[in-house]
Parts: sequence; C-alpha cells; structure tokens
Amino acid sequence: MVGIKRTRSTCGVSQSLDVFGDKWSLLIIRDLVYFGKETYGDLLKMEEGIATNVLADKLVVLENEGLITKEIFVGSKSKFKYKLTQKGIDVYPIIMEILLWGGKYCDVMPEQKALAKMTKEKTDAFVKDVMRNYKKSLTERV
Amino acid sequence: MVGIKRTRSTCGVSQSLDVFGDKWSLLIIRDLVYFGKETYGDLLKMEEGIATNVLADKLVVLENEGLITKEIFVGSKSKFKYKLTQKGIDVYPIIMEILLWGGKYCDVMPEQKALAKMTKEKTDAFVKDVMRNYKKSLTERV
Repeated sequence: MVGIKRTRSTCGVSQSLDVFGDKWSLLIIRDLVYFGKETYGDLLKMEEGIATNVLADKLVVLENEGLITKEIFVGSKSKFKYKLTQKGIDVYPIIMEILLWGGKYCDVMPEQKALAKMTKEKTDAFVKDVMRNYKKSLTERV
Repeated sequence: MVGIKRTRSTCGVSQSLDVFGDKWSLLIIRDLVYFGKETYGDLLKMEEGIATNVLADKLVVLENEGLITKEIFVGSKSKFKYKLTQKGIDVYPIIMEILLWGGKYCDVMPEQKALAKMTKEKTDAFVKDVMRNYKKSLTERV
C-alpha cells in the first residue's frame, strides 16, 4: 500500500474494525487458528459457506494488514498455505470473547454454551492453550 | 421478526457476527457505554462520521436483537433515548479486547497504547469498572 493509510479515527476499536469489522474475517482467523486450516480450499469449506470472491478479498486484506502470510505449498506451485502471524494470532482473544457472548446469548452448540459458563480463569487458560498450540503447530508444519 | 431466524451455523462467533459483525455496531455500543451518549443526535456526532441512514439501520438491528432499548425522551416526544440492556452491556469485554489489539498494532491515541501495555488483571478491572459505571448511570438517569 502506498501513501498514508486513512483511518476513521485514532481509536483502537475503530482502526481494528477497519481491518476485520465484517462478518467473515474473524471466521477465517477462527478456522486457521482453531481448526488448523491452511489452504484456500480448506477455508472455502467453512461451515458458514463463504463465497469464493469474498474469501479471496478477505485474504488479501488480512495479508496486506500483516495478519497472515501466504506461502507456496510444497509440491504444488498453484496452491498456497496461509499462516497467521503473531499479529493475526493475537486476534484470537477477541474471537474468544465473541464466542463467550454467543454462548451466553445465541442458540449455539452445547460445548460453547458450557464454555460460556466457565470461570474467567478457565476461559483465559483455554485462550492461551489455543494460541500456544497453534504456534507449536506452525513450527511442526515447516 | 416472524418465523425462524436464519443463522449461518451453530457457532457462537458466527451468530454473534450476524448481529454486530460490521464496522459500526460496536462503535455505537462503545459510544453508549463509554462516552455516555443517549440520543440519536449524540450518536450521529460520533468521531468516525457515521451516516444517518447507517446509524438508523444499525440501531434497528441492535434493538431487534435486544442489545438496546429505545425510550421516549422526557419533554420531547420526537426524541428517543437509547440504553443498553445487559445483553448489550455484555458486548463491552469484546470491545475492550479489540481496543487492546488496536493499542498493540494500530496507530492509536497514547492512552490506548498505554492500556494495551497494562497487565491482564488491570485491564480486566478496567472493563468491570466501565460496565459497573454504565449500569449505575442508567439508574441515575431514570
């Protein structure tokens, strides 16, 4: 990106939403960090049924903003592997807070309802585990 | 809303984003809970410059989803007061996580940079304070 990036304000909430404030970006990050997805094809199979052009657009933004990196898949030059950077992994606590709210107020799967009833300490530990496991899996994949 | 509500999946992240997954809804909730705004006119003056039709649309969704209530302003029948319900107040921890991410990775105001460097305990206490103060202010307003 060339030139000064335009932001709506100097508020961190607003600037963050400029990056991932939509119905899909956080689901892509969820699938990468939590379901261990790596490729475009994997992501396209997302339960929520993301359209291919929407997925492509969101991946470009996430890459431009430094939340993911794209690497050529070993053995297939036309295939890419997507990995979250630390900046991308650090979105996970936000996803977890959203999941807890959903567990409390939406008609979600029983595991998530149970998660929302756990203590703050336990959910904090869960977040740390997910982030650590993802980072570990990245080094194992190389 | 009549009939069965359509959701994209049984995941709490996805269903929550069905409600507030956009660039504006969380900023409206931020302004209500953190800046003590109450009226449509107050919200319209949001720093980020929200368009009047976007604000109107988002308020309808937030009200239909039970995150806010709308009351006639005492002394002016054409004016409404918006208040967050408990369901709406419970979105604040999500906003805080987003703010912390923004404080770490975006070009935000110094106070928010400082907030992002605080311990988890301190930021958790900050969240509790904001939520408690908001609830207290609601009873005082009546």
